[in-house]
Amino acid sequence: MAVSAHISPFAPSVFPDVPPVAGMRFATAEAGIKYRGRTDVLFAVFDPGTTVAGVLTTTRCPSAPVEWCRANLPAGKARALLVNSGNANAFTGLKGRETVRLSAEAAAAVVGCAPEEVFLASTGVIGEPLDPSKFSAVLSDTAARVAPGPWLDAARAIMTTDTFPKVASRTLKIDGETVTINGIAKGAGMIAPNMATMLSFIATDAPIAAPVLQSLIARAADGSFNAITIDGDTSTSDTLLMFATGKAQIAPITEATDRRLAGFRRALASLSLELAHLVAKDGEGLTKFVAVTVEGATSAKSAKKIAFSIANSPLVKTACAGEDANWGRIVMAVGKAGEPAERDRLAIWFGDVRVAVDGARDPDYSEDAASAVMKRPEIAIRVDLGLGRGKATVWTCDLTKEYVAINGDYRS
Amino acid sequence: MAVSAHISPFAPSVFPDVPPVAGMRFATAEAGIKYRGRTDVLFAVFDPGTTVAGVLTTTRCPSAPVEWCRANLPAGKARALLVNSGNANAFTGLKGRETVRLSAEAAAAVVGCAPEEVFLASTGVIGEPLDPSKFSAVLSDTAARVAPGPWLDAARAIMTTDTFPKVASRTLKIDGETVTINGIAKGAGMIAPNMATMLSFIATDAPIAAPVLQSLIARAADGSFNAITIDGDTSTSDTLLMFATGKAQIAPITEATDRRLAGFRRALASLSLELAHLVAKDGEGLTKFVAVTVEGATSAKSAKKIAFSIANSPLVKTACAGEDANWGRIVMAVGKAGEPAERDRLAIWFGDVRVAVDGARDPDYSEDAASAVMKRPEIAIRVDLGLGRGKATVWTCDLTKEYVAINGDYRS
Repeated sequence: MAVSAHISPFAPSVFPDVPPVAGMRFATAEAGIKYRGRTDVLFAVFDPGTTVAGVLTTTRCPSAPVEWCRANLPAGKARALLVNSGNANAFTGLKGRETVRLSAEAAAAVVGCAPEEVFLASTGVIGEPLDPSKFSAVLSDTAARVAPGPWLDAARAIMTTDTFPKVASRTLKIDGETVTINGIAKGAGMIAPNMATMLSFIATDAPIAAPVLQSLIARAADGSFNAITIDGDTSTSDTLLMFATGKAQIAPITEATDRRLAGFRRALASLSLELAHLVAKDGEGLTKFVAVTVEGATSAKSAKKIAFSIANSPLVKTACAGEDANWGRIVMAVGKAGEPAERDRLAIWFGDVRVAVDGARDPDYSEDAASAVMKRPEIAIRVDLGLGRGKATVWTCDLTKEYVAINGDYRS
Repeated sequence: MAVSAHISPFAPSVFPDVPPVAGMRFATAEAGIKYRGRTDVLFAVFDPGTTVAGVLTTTRCPSAPVEWCRANLPAGKARALLVNSGNANAFTGLKGRETVRLSAEAAAAVVGCAPEEVFLASTGVIGEPLDPSKFSAVLSDTAARVAPGPWLDAARAIMTTDTFPKVASRTLKIDGETVTINGIAKGAGMIAPNMATMLSFIATDAPIAAPVLQSLIARAADGSFNAITIDGDTSTSDTLLMFATGKAQIAPITEATDRRLAGFRRALASLSLELAHLVAKDGEGLTKFVAVTVEGATSAKSAKKIAFSIANSPLVKTACAGEDANWGRIVMAVGKAGEPAERDRLAIWFGDVRVAVDGARDPDYSEDAASAVMKRPEIAIRVDLGLGRGKATVWTCDLTKEYVAINGDYRS
């Protein structure tokens, strides 16, 4: 991997304190899969009774671990999670499937569970065979070291071109008891809409049945991980898994209509959005974090498609990098989205500065005011289509020379 | 406009000799619309009887001149063409429409025709009002200087961020008579599929009825201008117009089934492809010209969609810039296209080097051989999906730091 000297300007200077999730313990290891001198394996074990749900990449060419997860998610039971960075085990043919099976069996033997209760994820280079002995060499020792924290170590072990670890936590009360939700994520490249982008793992001690957990995580992903884009590219390996250990001392939640879920939904949405934002804020080579809001669309779906057309446009993204309030490129991106739009009803804002209205430049438009917005590290772009009530926000970053440098040299 | 010191490595050192097209004369002018010290207006006049056809951008937010052309193309009659660079007259509201009307009227007065027989195109910055007096100030003088050439001057006047003028010519025999087809194009940014990309103007002295001309140019655009992409962005102003003056001494061609069109179709396809390649070879900041061929798809349409998914992928394009035979990113781009594909049937080539087969790395794959292909200025990427007989080729360029520099600073 090309190591970039570029560190995201949004890298947190302080990381949150993350409490343990009862019923989950983990450790990390240096398996030397690709990197040297850093951890590249995360191994987590869950107490019996843990449920699992997830959202996986929609690609037609999924990695072997994604296929494994897809096959085993319906059972909804998890006892272990094994993740590595440095090699995606994608497009590795029969050998790749064999690696997955052997790894799951090795982890299952250590934990004392069925291989199908072991969930796997791999991220890194595509097309390189992944040697299963890399896992077996470290599994026993790693399993002997599992502990309830620190979560930051877990976040570090799954990084590839990320420049900082991504971790978030929420606590809430249900029936007077404290419930915890923790999550980690990795991203940086191949981040795009309409799938469970990148790798993210969320765990809670709430006792939530697997089908309910599935509906919760799918909905949370929609407004968060599925609303960010870095380069419009969709990975073969995108995996979002959520585990519920059930150790919190409250009555089991077995229905999606359970009223006790209201606060949990809000906390999960907020945690997912924070993780998704952290991923976008670590976009390769970025200097700007950009929120694109489209309103007045004929539907929320149409608004999201137009927002992504803007957020994925190289010309919009380079304009952000150049701090150029180039709203003509916003018009272009709205026009090419193929969704209902009428040029003469469009209005466009950068921050609070309206630059265009009724299909033409705002007569009161101040270039200075718009430029001042563009100089901020976080830029808000807003488009009102003036057609209906559909609204959506997506998040992205700018496109810089550093992105090209990082990705023009990844494998060397 | 940010003037880049970067000149395309594919800039021709010698330009073709372009013969006149009888019945067409033109001149260029410095109207000072945006640029200083260079021509920015092209004014062409056609003899009475000239037919016209065209393909226009599919954007929902077209420029005022595009709307003008769309309204007047059905009549199929042209007496003049007025083109400017530096200002796209797009998203300029009522004022923009007024500029178009006044410009067409001024040109019509000079030529002595109806305003609806004047075709207009503008390229450059979006959202800036275009002052119609810029045209009226130069029209009379320009009209007094019209001549059958040089075509290179015409190509120069319509450039924006292009680093070289784009001109091509073909001659062929029909009924023993020489027929000429000439064309110019400009491109560089906002180049993407499924529309008449950028500006291109083609003229022939063949006597071809407007409806026939329309079918010819639509078909030629499909395999050429609609098969290139630079950044996936679709302009508000893309315009391809074709004029037929009818001065060649052959019997009129009034039916698309006319057998005499066979050679003409081939010549037009070849000229269109040459112009489209020249556009892709002047992609902003490029160092590589990349042909992406997808075969074995379930249909030609599916093949083209997958080819564009590859050609528009920032990760594929940066890999080309870095001369990295990163076929994992090709797999990713195939997978995200959303078209039928089966991972375990995929085969991938860089040039003649097969790097992947049956859903895994080719056991005989030589990294050195693949790297040698990537070092060439022209790179061929080929994917066989192994599903059917659908095939398509599209062309693109790499994504470099220079692209970001050019587009991060365009308006300043």
